[in-house]
Amino acid sequence: MVEIERKFLVTNRDFISESSENFRIVQGYLNSNPERTVRVRIKGDKGFLTIKGKGNDSGMSRFEWEKEIAISEAEALLSLCEKGAIDKIRYNVMHENHLFEVDVFFGENEGLIVAEIELQSENESFSKPNWLGEEVTSDERYYNAYLSNHPFKSW
Amino acid sequence: MVEIERKFLVTNRDFISESSENFRIVQGYLNSNPERTVRVRIKGDKGFLTIKGKGNDSGMSRFEWEKEIAISEAEALLSLCEKGAIDKIRYNVMHENHLFEVDVFFGENEGLIVAEIELQSENESFSKPNWLGEEVTSDERYYNAYLSNHPFKSW
Repeated sequence: MVEIERKFLVTNRDFISESSENFRIVQGYLNSNPERTVRVRIKGDKGFLTIKGKGNDSGMSRFEWEKEIAISEAEALLSLCEKGAIDKIRYNVMHENHLFEVDVFFGENEGLIVAEIELQSENESFSKPNWLGEEVTSDERYYNAYLSNHPFKSW
Repeated sequence: MVEIERKFLVTNRDFISESSENFRIVQGYLNSNPERTVRVRIKGDKGFLTIKGKGNDSGMSRFEWEKEIAISEAEALLSLCEKGAIDKIRYNVMHENHLFEVDVFFGENEGLIVAEIELQSENESFSKPNWLGEEVTSDERYYNAYLSNHPFKSW
């Protein structure tokens, strides 16, 4: 299916007190090519395999296929991945009926905090929380697959 | 898990009369790198996503993870794959208690016929049918992922 998402930098940590839950996420790439990204993710105590196509011109819409897999399988597949695993904590923040997924990165991407919102259409409006900064939806440098090969600290 | 397989060229078509069933297979690659091959396959009326690691020194043992997926999902994922889909008919042939999977290739790989046998250990013995030719287990040119980028007709 096609996912519609917008991505923003985050300017302060006020989102933490508004968040309802958080999970550690570790993920690697079996292919970090943005034409056909293949991601292995461990999120909390669950495993996922996710395949994404290239974004459209706005960067908002992107084919995405995801299956939950056993965590033992996710661990085995992570060991096959390209170097450059991504390590982050995800905070789920409901803000006026929209869910923001805020990722605080660690390791080689320390210092980067990014928020994503999933929308039903590219022109759906939503209320911006005070901690939401510059939009980076169409900037492929903020793809996690890109960060895997070009970590934020090296920018 | 680790699969143990040996691969052979096939010297004549006598295997067809010995085969119990056959399926058309169309497959593409989300990654054709032998370190972390990601394959999308449609086999008859079923879809599969398969991830393989690199073979060991003998080429016989290789990490392999596979999940059946809906055929509609396999079709969507095939459209994301690298150019160079593989098209073949697979014949299942039981020969003295061992299953040989014999692949007759079409399209850009026409002329190539390869048989694979799955074993329980690298030194398991088996009886060779008269149509079994040279062993090519350790020759990575016969990986379907390699054939996808370097079709047999171009050799």
